[in-house]
Amino acid sequence: MIPVSLKDLAKELNLSVSTVSKALNDCYDISAETKRKAFALAAKMNYHPNPYATGLRKQNSKTIAVIIPEIANHFFSLAINGIESVAKDRGYHFLIYLTHEDYQKEIEITKHFQNGRVDGLLLSLSSETSNVAHIEELLSRGVKIVSFDRVSEKILTSRVNTNDFQSSYLATEHLIERGCRNIAFLSNSKNLSTNNNRMKGYIQALARHQLPVEDHLVFECTNDNDHNYQLISDILQRKNRPDGIFASVEKIAMTTYHVCHDLGIDIPKDIKILSFSNLEIASFLNPSLTTITQPAFEIGQEAASILFNLLEAKKNNSQILNKTLNSKLIIRNSTN
Amino acid sequence: MIPVSLKDLAKELNLSVSTVSKALNDCYDISAETKRKAFALAAKMNYHPNPYATGLRKQNSKTIAVIIPEIANHFFSLAINGIESVAKDRGYHFLIYLTHEDYQKEIEITKHFQNGRVDGLLLSLSSETSNVAHIEELLSRGVKIVSFDRVSEKILTSRVNTNDFQSSYLATEHLIERGCRNIAFLSNSKNLSTNNNRMKGYIQALARHQLPVEDHLVFECTNDNDHNYQLISDILQRKNRPDGIFASVEKIAMTTYHVCHDLGIDIPKDIKILSFSNLEIASFLNPSLTTITQPAFEIGQEAASILFNLLEAKKNNSQILNKTLNSKLIIRNSTN
Repeated sequence: MIPVSLKDLAKELNLSVSTVSKALNDCYDISAETKRKAFALAAKMNYHPNPYATGLRKQNSKTIAVIIPEIANHFFSLAINGIESVAKDRGYHFLIYLTHEDYQKEIEITKHFQNGRVDGLLLSLSSETSNVAHIEELLSRGVKIVSFDRVSEKILTSRVNTNDFQSSYLATEHLIERGCRNIAFLSNSKNLSTNNNRMKGYIQALARHQLPVEDHLVFECTNDNDHNYQLISDILQRKNRPDGIFASVEKIAMTTYHVCHDLGIDIPKDIKILSFSNLEIASFLNPSLTTITQPAFEIGQEAASILFNLLEAKKNNSQILNKTLNSKLIIRNSTN
Repeated sequence: MIPVSLKDLAKELNLSVSTVSKALNDCYDISAETKRKAFALAAKMNYHPNPYATGLRKQNSKTIAVIIPEIANHFFSLAINGIESVAKDRGYHFLIYLTHEDYQKEIEITKHFQNGRVDGLLLSLSSETSNVAHIEELLSRGVKIVSFDRVSEKILTSRVNTNDFQSSYLATEHLIERGCRNIAFLSNSKNLSTNNNRMKGYIQALARHQLPVEDHLVFECTNDNDHNYQLISDILQRKNRPDGIFASVEKIAMTTYHVCHDLGIDIPKDIKILSFSNLEIASFLNPSLTTITQPAFEIGQEAASILFNLLEAKKNNSQILNKTLNSKLIIRNSTN
């Protein structure tokens, strides 16, 4: 492609390249008249500074990376909408990287950011990640990072997430109020503090209602749907079948629907189900799904704002912000 | 951030920057021994070339842009997964831009690409776009573009889409076979050839079965859900209510479910519904939704492959490829 260059403008204006450059950068030593002419011609000829030249000079690219586990997931697609709304307003571009919940892929991806490709990073960890040396390496090189949703307490960055403990406590209490006494918790990771907080809320609600906390009622699902299908199928064919399921993520709830359908188990008569989920059409499911709905759009907005503020701060600001937004329990027929 | 630079390597090796650069670029005039030393140190010091310096020199950035109408939509999130799978393998990075179906936003976004920020572009048009001068402007500047799904016949680029005409014809025939005689078509745009091909399939199937093609049965929905709700609500409260609905996109089908629920209209007894959709959980809806399912992942893969081939072609290749992948009609209870 042949974009209009500073040289083209300079030739047209009969000025040196450096004068035109200074004029467009509003330098004090260039006359108002020259600046006016330079800006007018730049607009007319549709001149845009080359972002790589600008990036090299200013040591910034106005580009950030967003690393997420997956994109075909309502929480993350809404969070991206939130990130986009702020990025657009503040003139940032964003690259998307998907780990597919794979720790090795996450490491590979972070290697791209050791060389100035991006100014900063919005990060939501893979469910496999427990060792965070690859993130610490980036931080030590001065890459600005803000974590959201899937955060790790080991990573010293600002974080945006939701009140996982409290909302899981309330959701578990809701299942107990609806008569469940044998509630299984289906986790999606043992590494993420997000997931651990959700499990703690579940355990504390059981304890508070004098229900025993049984190890054999906590299950770890993986990123493999077939494995999860088999696991849930085994759980639901036990003699002492759970009467309630708390799914830590939407995908696990949908697999549970699948298993119940195939085994002829009636939701909510035989088993009640609820899940963390941002599924917009949860109310049209059969039966409609009770959800703990996270403010996904707002989480994306907040994380992006914190990162852009960090990037634009005049002096190096190492203050760590922890922002917690509230999720909402939306009661529907799956727990009726 | 302070990445390791060529200068750091040169200092350590006691060589000039240009010698180290040549060594790492495997130039013929540098000895094998120097190359070995340079590569070994680069690996040890975790050196990565600055992408902006490389981009300036090679006039490429290994970065593409993906412009789509929205991301919280199963077709597009799956297509992005397809794009990502190819980009990762071929060493490309991708920026995401959302038009939110807004023509003006689409124009604003394309302005970013006049200056070498990206090597190429994967484009799925907004439903509002009829004038394509902004895309032609990019093409005239040599930006490589591949269109997918939401294509316009006015834009002379390679295209990847599905057999919209044929699959709509078959879907309409399915509604007729299930007894519908008064089928409404809910379009999402009058500008896109995608949508027009879907409508043509619908019209031709009606004609083939000696059913009148009525103007008052074709409706144009917009990007405004409230407007669509009102429109569909009006249609379903008419004296001569349709007995079948063909929704051109998933979002419109979900709004139709919403209206039917609120008006107490039974699907499929009172009205049958089908839709283009990549909703994975279509079978768990109440009732499960009959869908025309596009090979979204494969469309993304194919579009990305064509673009990368174009970018890597040794000589300027202006050949235009038109790739059509087949969608699948999946019959479920909403048309029972």
